[in-house]
Amino acid sequence: MQLKEETLRREEVYHGRIFCVERALVRLPNGKEGQREVVRHPGAVDVLAWTDPETLLLVRQFRYAAGEELWEIPAGKLEPGEDPAVCAARELSEETGYAPGDLKELARFYSSPGFSSEVLYLYEARGLRAGSGEKDDDEFLEVRRIPLKTALDWVARGQVHDAKTLIALLLAGRRNIA
Amino acid sequence: MQLKEETLRREEVYHGRIFCVERALVRLPNGKEGQREVVRHPGAVDVLAWTDPETLLLVRQFRYAAGEELWEIPAGKLEPGEDPAVCAARELSEETGYAPGDLKELARFYSSPGFSSEVLYLYEARGLRAGSGEKDDDEFLEVRRIPLKTALDWVARGQVHDAKTLIALLLAGRRNIA
Repeated sequence: MQLKEETLRREEVYHGRIFCVERALVRLPNGKEGQREVVRHPGAVDVLAWTDPETLLLVRQFRYAAGEELWEIPAGKLEPGEDPAVCAARELSEETGYAPGDLKELARFYSSPGFSSEVLYLYEARGLRAGSGEKDDDEFLEVRRIPLKTALDWVARGQVHDAKTLIALLLAGRRNIA
Repeated sequence: MQLKEETLRREEVYHGRIFCVERALVRLPNGKEGQREVVRHPGAVDVLAWTDPETLLLVRQFRYAAGEELWEIPAGKLEPGEDPAVCAARELSEETGYAPGDLKELARFYSSPGFSSEVLYLYEARGLRAGSGEKDDDEFLEVRRIPLKTALDWVARGQVHDAKTLIALLLAGRRNIA
């Protein structure tokens, strides 16, 4: 089945600090025209960081968009042209103070492809070196070491409300990484 | 630790058909001021729909924001004031032609809380009635019945690139639903 949409015209209708918004006119598979409205986002990384084979780092922070505090794995936006692995090491250091020894890509996915181009690159970090990272004094978050088993209990009880963190924890549980 | 940010001023800088963009000035936990830029989204539902105890429905569609075709579980946006369970039944029917017998909430999460307010309500549907739903002729997607085992193989091989679908499949695998 032919599903692709052809872009006939596109226009940037909002240019922000973090993302832009684009409106487009497309040719639908049935030949008719349709409208699309999307967020253009630079992408982000998130890091499943192990302090020992059974314990990972979670950060708690207030998310303005959500209006509440959430438990998440360390994460951050890509700078223009930045290599995702370099970004993962930088964000881990800035948020937790730990520098990764070894980084491996676990998954990459769209956070919400119905309206946003954001791709998330999920890394796994091992061999952390405490204190060697440059922690950012201007981020307001609480860092905790949590056993994977505990984190998966939180998932089972519906207490983890961040998509990338759910994916990382469920992949870790499935692959028996811990 | 006090993490909450107090909103000092907020302004809608883009008003779209699907979402809006808001800029805000906030009081940070250290007393300084900071800027926030977020997408205000009405929220969405997604449905893990079983045609038999080991087989679920996946849909393939072109996603303009991603620029490619993706495999996803059936999903759609909430109408203003709509009950998420009603929306789940409606979207399942429109996308697949199946009406759910029984619907149960499995999880709810933010797709990307760093910049978007979108909440996703994940439902599980059983007792599907084929042909009784009203399929939407204006959506361009391919519907397939896929064994959970096959879908989890796709996950392991890095072939599933949609966050909500990864969460649904990994939860299904973990809970041994199938």
